[in-house]
Amino acid sequence: MTETRRPISLTGIKPTGVPHLGNYVGAIRPALKLVEGYDAFYFIADYHALISVRDRESLDYYTRSVAATWLACGLDPEAATFYRQSDIPETFELTWVLACMTPKGLMNRAHAYKAARDKNREAGLVDLDAGINMGLYNYPILMAVDILIMEADVVPVGKDQIQHVEIARDIAGSFNHAYGDKYEFKLPRNITSEDEDANAMPGLDGRKMSKSYNNTIPLFCERNELRKLVRRIKTDSTPVDAPKDPDSSSLFSIYKQFASEEDQAKMRERMLAGGLGWGEMKDMLFEQIDAVLAEPRERYKALMEDRKALDEILASGAERARARARRVLESVRAAIGID
Amino acid sequence: MTETRRPISLTGIKPTGVPHLGNYVGAIRPALKLVEGYDAFYFIADYHALISVRDRESLDYYTRSVAATWLACGLDPEAATFYRQSDIPETFELTWVLACMTPKGLMNRAHAYKAARDKNREAGLVDLDAGINMGLYNYPILMAVDILIMEADVVPVGKDQIQHVEIARDIAGSFNHAYGDKYEFKLPRNITSEDEDANAMPGLDGRKMSKSYNNTIPLFCERNELRKLVRRIKTDSTPVDAPKDPDSSSLFSIYKQFASEEDQAKMRERMLAGGLGWGEMKDMLFEQIDAVLAEPRERYKALMEDRKALDEILASGAERARARARRVLESVRAAIGID
Repeated sequence: MTETRRPISLTGIKPTGVPHLGNYVGAIRPALKLVEGYDAFYFIADYHALISVRDRESLDYYTRSVAATWLACGLDPEAATFYRQSDIPETFELTWVLACMTPKGLMNRAHAYKAARDKNREAGLVDLDAGINMGLYNYPILMAVDILIMEADVVPVGKDQIQHVEIARDIAGSFNHAYGDKYEFKLPRNITSEDEDANAMPGLDGRKMSKSYNNTIPLFCERNELRKLVRRIKTDSTPVDAPKDPDSSSLFSIYKQFASEEDQAKMRERMLAGGLGWGEMKDMLFEQIDAVLAEPRERYKALMEDRKALDEILASGAERARARARRVLESVRAAIGID
Repeated sequence: MTETRRPISLTGIKPTGVPHLGNYVGAIRPALKLVEGYDAFYFIADYHALISVRDRESLDYYTRSVAATWLACGLDPEAATFYRQSDIPETFELTWVLACMTPKGLMNRAHAYKAARDKNREAGLVDLDAGINMGLYNYPILMAVDILIMEADVVPVGKDQIQHVEIARDIAGSFNHAYGDKYEFKLPRNITSEDEDANAMPGLDGRKMSKSYNNTIPLFCERNELRKLVRRIKTDSTPVDAPKDPDSSSLFSIYKQFASEEDQAKMRERMLAGGLGWGEMKDMLFEQIDAVLAEPRERYKALMEDRKALDEILASGAERARARARRVLESVRAAIGID
């Protein structure tokens, strides 16, 4: 069993929408790469999505969509442990235990909560907690439990998520301080990609591709739809003949993420030389993206059409993950004097 | 199955100490009486106690002690459903679901949290959340779930706990508003005893008997210990011969709770007539309390000495309670789009 001796990585995936190209380049692809050498755990944080998704059909659809997306992008459910958060009920009992060890002040300082308050402040509201639910406020505890209950060594996260791993360490530390004679949580650390380009890949309007800007290209839209959307990417009015600066071009920024080094060099040369119009470049970009995504797109469609197969993959992952969760929770219960 | 058609009552018992006479008179006895005509559920809120009890031996001991106490006082585990909160894991998953439906402002207004902040304010602390953990802050959600997951119709609570039932209604209402087309929580109401005397029975120093005043008489201390403690109850220096006012006497306030109407009338008469000294009255009070508690005390001791029997009683109750909790959680999951 050398497998269990490898350090454990854990990646959480929030199903609050249908994945887009920016998710692929900034999150999915690096997460699948970063964890080489680890015993990799991936989970769909469907109970996290409940903080904002109030519609059962959407929650179900997004959950299946992100599951199918990660599998289509190369997540191997035999090599990794891939499961839904909601299939690990031990998570929620441990969330209560660790809530009792979590100083309220720690939650007051959490980024997502502070951002929501700032928004209320900017809107001139007197009650800065207006519209904030206790799921949002408690979320860092749930996230800590997701990590700790799988005894993760590392958590691949973007820079904006590093705080969550720090909070998980803090909460684990509180528990260890009180009950460490009987059970000690492993302290996780983050691993974070430094690839700024991938994190900030532009969308249709030139700003970072993001659901909140409504400027996304769905990762697995049909070929024709993909072509249409790529054609809509905003460009300036530089004439066809004029040389173009690759480093200030959205099209090139996206192209870089999908083309080989060699093709990137060629494209750069042609742009600087002049004579390459935006229209032609969009066609080349489209073909390049499509070449990368055509196969995964077929796998995605097949998975979305076979609910039973998808459910079975997730159920099998959950079974393995739960065995670990059960063991951790049992140790915790013994440590605190319950059971 | 007429049994399941009776309305359901639910009583929560927090195991944060060894029960005393004040608990018996103010909470245990009325709770056992109030629920006549109901399908009665009682649970030991051990995970609630975790908010303040940081010592595994204490938590375990208090849990067994309150369980044995209620059984010794007449809780019939065949007629009622008696279980430990920690044996119902569905509770914690539902706590997450309902946290997502709970406005943070509702928790800001909860009495226990506000009292903790007031204490910090009085102590001159700048950080009003100092020393407050997220268990305390979240507790009204857990309490709401305890109630809602058993589909309770009524919750017998003291006046200071009525807010918890109101919060449970509010949270249930939020859920019903969003998902009521698929599942609706029953809205619980409180039933509250108006017996102010029982609620405020005095302790050793004349103030209300309460753990926080350190003036309690343990419910099931040994007969000799009980005699000693009763003798320590504070009295004034009225001479033996002088008449005494029953309505301003701690001894009589306690006596009332344990004696028959007839014996109360006799005692009142003797006090008013003069000639009854505090010493003699203490002996009578002691005998009266002991007469009421002697049998339950033996049952309590037997239960405390037989961990296996106690565990079996609680496990059997948990099995029945879990069947209901599972059904409710399944309906909730279907309603929100998880599973």
